[in-house]
Amino acid sequence: MGAHKIAIIPGDGIGTPVTQAAWQVISEACALDGAALEATWFDWSCDTFLKTGRMMPEDGIETLRGFDAILLGAVGWPQKVPDSVSLHGLLLPIRKNFTQYANIRPHRLLPGVVGPLRAEKFDILCIRENTEGEYSGAGGRVHQGTADEVAVETSIFTRTGVERILRFGFEQARKRRGKLASVTKSNAQKYSMVFWDEVTDQLAAEYPDVEVSRYHVDAIAARFVMAPETLDVVVASNLFGDILTDLGAAIQGGLGFAASANINPDRSAPSMFEPVHGSAPDIADLGIANPIATIWSAAMMLEHLGETASAVRVMAAIEATTAAGIGTTPGQNSTDEITNAVSERIA
Amino acid sequence: MGAHKIAIIPGDGIGTPVTQAAWQVISEACALDGAALEATWFDWSCDTFLKTGRMMPEDGIETLRGFDAILLGAVGWPQKVPDSVSLHGLLLPIRKNFTQYANIRPHRLLPGVVGPLRAEKFDILCIRENTEGEYSGAGGRVHQGTADEVAVETSIFTRTGVERILRFGFEQARKRRGKLASVTKSNAQKYSMVFWDEVTDQLAAEYPDVEVSRYHVDAIAARFVMAPETLDVVVASNLFGDILTDLGAAIQGGLGFAASANINPDRSAPSMFEPVHGSAPDIADLGIANPIATIWSAAMMLEHLGETASAVRVMAAIEATTAAGIGTTPGQNSTDEITNAVSERIA
Ligand SMILES: CC(C)[C@H](C(=O)O)[C@@H](O)C(=O)O
Ligand SMILES: CC(C)[C@H](C(=O)O)[C@@H](O)C(=O)O
Repeated sequence: MGAHKIAIIPGDGIGTPVTQAAWQVISEACALDGAALEATWFDWSCDTFLKTGRMMPEDGIETLRGFDAILLGAVGWPQKVPDSVSLHGLLLPIRKNFTQYANIRPHRLLPGVVGPLRAEKFDILCIRENTEGEYSGAGGRVHQGTADEVAVETSIFTRTGVERILRFGFEQARKRRGKLASVTKSNAQKYSMVFWDEVTDQLAAEYPDVEVSRYHVDAIAARFVMAPETLDVVVASNLFGDILTDLGAAIQGGLGFAASANINPDRSAPSMFEPVHGSAPDIADLGIANPIATIWSAAMMLEHLGETASAVRVMAAIEATTAAGIGTTPGQNSTDEITNAVSERIA
Repeated sequence: MGAHKIAIIPGDGIGTPVTQAAWQVISEACALDGAALEATWFDWSCDTFLKTGRMMPEDGIETLRGFDAILLGAVGWPQKVPDSVSLHGLLLPIRKNFTQYANIRPHRLLPGVVGPLRAEKFDILCIRENTEGEYSGAGGRVHQGTADEVAVETSIFTRTGVERILRFGFEQARKRRGKLASVTKSNAQKYSMVFWDEVTDQLAAEYPDVEVSRYHVDAIAARFVMAPETLDVVVASNLFGDILTDLGAAIQGGLGFAASANINPDRSAPSMFEPVHGSAPDIADLGIANPIATIWSAAMMLEHLGETASAVRVMAAIEATTAAGIGTTPGQNSTDEITNAVSERIA
């Protein structure tokens, strides 16, 4: 088998140091396990937009299609390019065009990390729908700039889209503690969310071994804080998953620890791995970005590529690092210190 | 001045005991201050629906219009009537028909309450848009029951709706610590939320004394947990406000403490006061519902009616009760014990 071909898109702000850190660590791990990786770096970013008027070249998606996986840092720098332009020009088209419909976000407290909750147990796997729903991009505005202006934004849910993400959720629950929480807001959104509930009920019949609970998004947000130990796998729409995973990230100690995988489960196109955090322009030049979320995401990439030994090795090194109190508190260690600490623990 | 005419709708489940508790306490407070209240009770609920096919009579809205204020317990009992029916038949039409566009939800730790966060300071005032946006009820489904089914749900934002809620937020910020957080998701919802951001910027120019920050909903959800002390007044759309206020409720110690006011600021129709919690069918008959959220909501009603002395009296009694360790932990005291404890502290 040849080398795994990885496209690396550092993107904006702290995207560069964290992807460099992750690449260093996974390269070392794979070398020890005899797995071959080959990286191609793409400088697509807001700076590219300022120079070329595009976040990525016109054939960007076709270029990426030739890779086995994509590692992405962060996209967005609102002072340079509006987020509504930069994200719709780079991050979101990749997720959609490559049918990366399952966004997997593991939230758990790493050893040595003190989270904001008094409760000490936190281990939730969020599965977020990643291609449609509230972020379909459908909508418009009339009477713009006048007192009569109206803006509409339409959430679009297809049976294909809803069924496949729920099915993915059920499968993940089977691999864990057998509990699935399906998130809706069907008491107030009577078309989209009632539909989601119906599909949940239909699939539940196929997975009698999985215990399914339905929660409204507001109630489950409260539950993340009040009774997280009652949750195992959480499956949610694009927007609800987005909100709950930032909340999950906060509870696991901060965005610096939150990893994510944008998976195309059919493998008909590459999957993408990226930290949940953004580009953080304010700390972009300080050298203090925590690379752990990106290293963790890269470990998920190795797992996806079948390099399980290296994936396990990287996760063990991350845990040994935080257990030693390195990288556990924001700003306490530099990006380089944390990266080197993980790197030393790879062997 | 004659008595304030209050419509009380206990609704479903624990709605009955908590509204009874609140009525007892505010009646006692007003008696001491020489303020007159007159209650009319309405048994509109899911049970009414099962008997009559309607959550409230056809002229329900017109009946309520004659009152000075509405005190509501909770609506919904999904085992009897789907939430999408019960809420659209009673709670939501009141909010919309009476243009109760400002849903005010104060979140702070009462004395004696130990919240789920390690941080001990929590004091955020949420202002939620209450009449349009993601809960407009516009949408539909095609190819129902087939593999090609599509459900759409359209969020509708008008300049009138967005401007008035933001303005209300700015005014509230002026009365507090002068900081306003405006919540959007303009990086992914490029019509509705970009519009919201534009209106925020326009109004900011009119309120130079208020410090405005814009947050994405995912980021501010994380901030509620990680750095709540950086927030003062938070203004958000219907859905985002819904989620953030359940989160706020959780952080202030649970839904048992979360009060809310659905305000028509122009006073062209009655305002409605209700706890954030729902009907909790599972504990409906146990006599352990915490009435504090509803008593607090009723205090907000007194304030709205101009009975400030009684409102202050009720809040002081609530705080003295929790400071004495009564009603601070779920299930520890019965509804009656808590109500009597507040009642004893009214004088
Ligand atoms: C940047 C933004 C568009 C993105 C999203 O909402 O999907 C981010 O918040 C995330 O969670 O990956
Ligand atoms: C019951 C439901 C429709 C309601 C809402 O979402 O408005 C509730 O969650 C609330 O927060 O008042």
